[in-house]
Amino acid sequence: MRFAIHAQDGQARTGEVHTAHGVIRTPAFMPVGTAATVKAMTPEAVRSTGADIILSNTYHLMLRPSAELVARLGGLHRFMHWDGPILTDSGGFQVMSLAKLRKLTEQGVTFQSHLDGTTYELTPERAMEIQYLLGSDISMVLDECTPYPATEKAAADSMRLSMRWAERSKNAFVRREGYAVFGIVQGSVYPALREESCTALKAIGFDGYAVGGLAVGEGQEIMFNVLDFTLPHLPAERPRYLMGVGKPDDIVGAVMRGVDMFDCVIPTRAGRFARAYTEKGERNIRNARYAEDANPLQEGCPCPACTQYSRAYLHHLFKADEMLGPMLLTWHNLTFYQQLMQGLRAAIAQGRLEAFAGVFLERHRLKNEVD
Amino acid sequence: MRFAIHAQDGQARTGEVHTAHGVIRTPAFMPVGTAATVKAMTPEAVRSTGADIILSNTYHLMLRPSAELVARLGGLHRFMHWDGPILTDSGGFQVMSLAKLRKLTEQGVTFQSHLDGTTYELTPERAMEIQYLLGSDISMVLDECTPYPATEKAAADSMRLSMRWAERSKNAFVRREGYAVFGIVQGSVYPALREESCTALKAIGFDGYAVGGLAVGEGQEIMFNVLDFTLPHLPAERPRYLMGVGKPDDIVGAVMRGVDMFDCVIPTRAGRFARAYTEKGERNIRNARYAEDANPLQEGCPCPACTQYSRAYLHHLFKADEMLGPMLLTWHNLTFYQQLMQGLRAAIAQGRLEAFAGVFLERHRLKNEVD
Repeated sequence: MRFAIHAQDGQARTGEVHTAHGVIRTPAFMPVGTAATVKAMTPEAVRSTGADIILSNTYHLMLRPSAELVARLGGLHRFMHWDGPILTDSGGFQVMSLAKLRKLTEQGVTFQSHLDGTTYELTPERAMEIQYLLGSDISMVLDECTPYPATEKAAADSMRLSMRWAERSKNAFVRREGYAVFGIVQGSVYPALREESCTALKAIGFDGYAVGGLAVGEGQEIMFNVLDFTLPHLPAERPRYLMGVGKPDDIVGAVMRGVDMFDCVIPTRAGRFARAYTEKGERNIRNARYAEDANPLQEGCPCPACTQYSRAYLHHLFKADEMLGPMLLTWHNLTFYQQLMQGLRAAIAQGRLEAFAGVFLERHRLKNEVD
Repeated sequence: MRFAIHAQDGQARTGEVHTAHGVIRTPAFMPVGTAATVKAMTPEAVRSTGADIILSNTYHLMLRPSAELVARLGGLHRFMHWDGPILTDSGGFQVMSLAKLRKLTEQGVTFQSHLDGTTYELTPERAMEIQYLLGSDISMVLDECTPYPATEKAAADSMRLSMRWAERSKNAFVRREGYAVFGIVQGSVYPALREESCTALKAIGFDGYAVGGLAVGEGQEIMFNVLDFTLPHLPAERPRYLMGVGKPDDIVGAVMRGVDMFDCVIPTRAGRFARAYTEKGERNIRNARYAEDANPLQEGCPCPACTQYSRAYLHHLFKADEMLGPMLLTWHNLTFYQQLMQGLRAAIAQGRLEAFAGVFLERHRLKNEVD
């Protein structure tokens, strides 16, 4: 897997990751297709928003319909009709957050499915096998997502287990042209642990490096602080991926600190619950103020929700519990995110990221709902 | 409104209805967009199935968001972003089936909304006003949908009330180029009443004639029998619309009897509940037999569900309660219906309707689920 950096602006970079299924323009936002579908969207619609790559969840797919079945049907790309790059997580995060009766050992983790109670084992080797069966362009090592907050001792023990799992993951990864495996930095909020984790991963050697254990309730300030003292320890020539992040302002701040890739359920989940991201902030389209509003959701947005409908119509769809409401607002939010990424890439290329970020954060007032 | 009949084959006809918003090829199937949206579909997707016209429900729209609001927002076409013809029903059927505390008088019907209990009055004049505000290409007269079964006396009283309402509806209809109003034949299963109703409607004079009071539990044999003794009393040069019908074999039989237009929630509703219409009959894609089935839902079908996915993937989407499942199966079912209508139109044009119908009904075995 090749990562070509085209321009830098401060710590930020813009470039292209080349994978077996095509190019990812960075900084990149990956829509989440948990169960082999980006909720409420066709793959063509996802592509039309400007997305180059999607993320899918190993945990969900191993339970249903199973990696073996997906493989027999030709792999995940064919199964879900997405011919672009796919990144899969390792399943570790969902095992910790969704599964029942987890038992963690040096070997791996056994757990019961949250769907039907069936017992599964996930080891570093099995996580890589599943992602191989799915045909992921980018596989993630199995790690333990350290809970937050954690004592330094607990964070160290957890991180070191993840580093041993990272090495086993790397050894189990089947190397093929255009396919990549990423390591995951852990270490909670402790600079020495994050540095130790970076050093351990670099020694193993990965195609890219993710920062894990963030976006778990620590808040933006701590998250940015962790990025500030972690990213300098990662190799500049490899893509950096901040897992599970985030809101638009999280992304802007992380890009300024040198992050290249993001994934988050926020734009899709918000869309299903009537919350739209706009250049003036978040809008809850269910709000009665929109009942007679003939304006588009966001002037100038190229998505169908904005070019073809009024706020009043979108409001009506949600009031009437019509599926087209979540469909259109998901489409809009993913478009908003991809427009943001395009803006960030252009600003970095032109050396005006700071100005872009300043205007964006001020104008969009993203932490405050308009209504 | 102009209706050009291009060819006849037995009682069946094929032609074009010209409306203010374009041409409807007949025999036509109208997807139902109850609340100003065909559930789970964008208007572009509806159009891509081959639909020329959609139906929307006066009852639902008068309650929410209200006809006056739709009018202030530029009318129903603009509101829902459908630039083709729209037919609206009068609201009478839903008042009878959904509303609470109905009170029927010569003047009209008062009822309470099933949504919030608000009291409304629907008269022939108000039904026409609402449809005018919505901007419907084809307005339907207010009628009382006679319950089934009904005694001859009850059916006669009900039909005659509907005929008086039909005259008031016609008088209240604002005639404009390309906009039409249809009368509705009632009279239950009684030949003399149906004939009387046809005669009354013809005397008033309508742009088209609907057959109402069917598809209410009487069964296909009685429905076809009513069509057999009713349609000869309608003017051949006007479109004939069988309201609320039906399954594919209902449509084939009714077209052979001279019906030009249909609407029904079956294809959209079935799609949301995992039931697909195929040339081999109905399939419930939730059935475990499809879990590993790599075949397309229906070979040769041009819809995205069939050209881009396996049955196994569609099965997975429904098992995982993913919105894309209803989206794709609705798309497929509407495509199946429109392909059927296209087949019927071509067969009539080529004088081979009987052969087409025979093959279709035999091959598709539409009354039997495959699984």
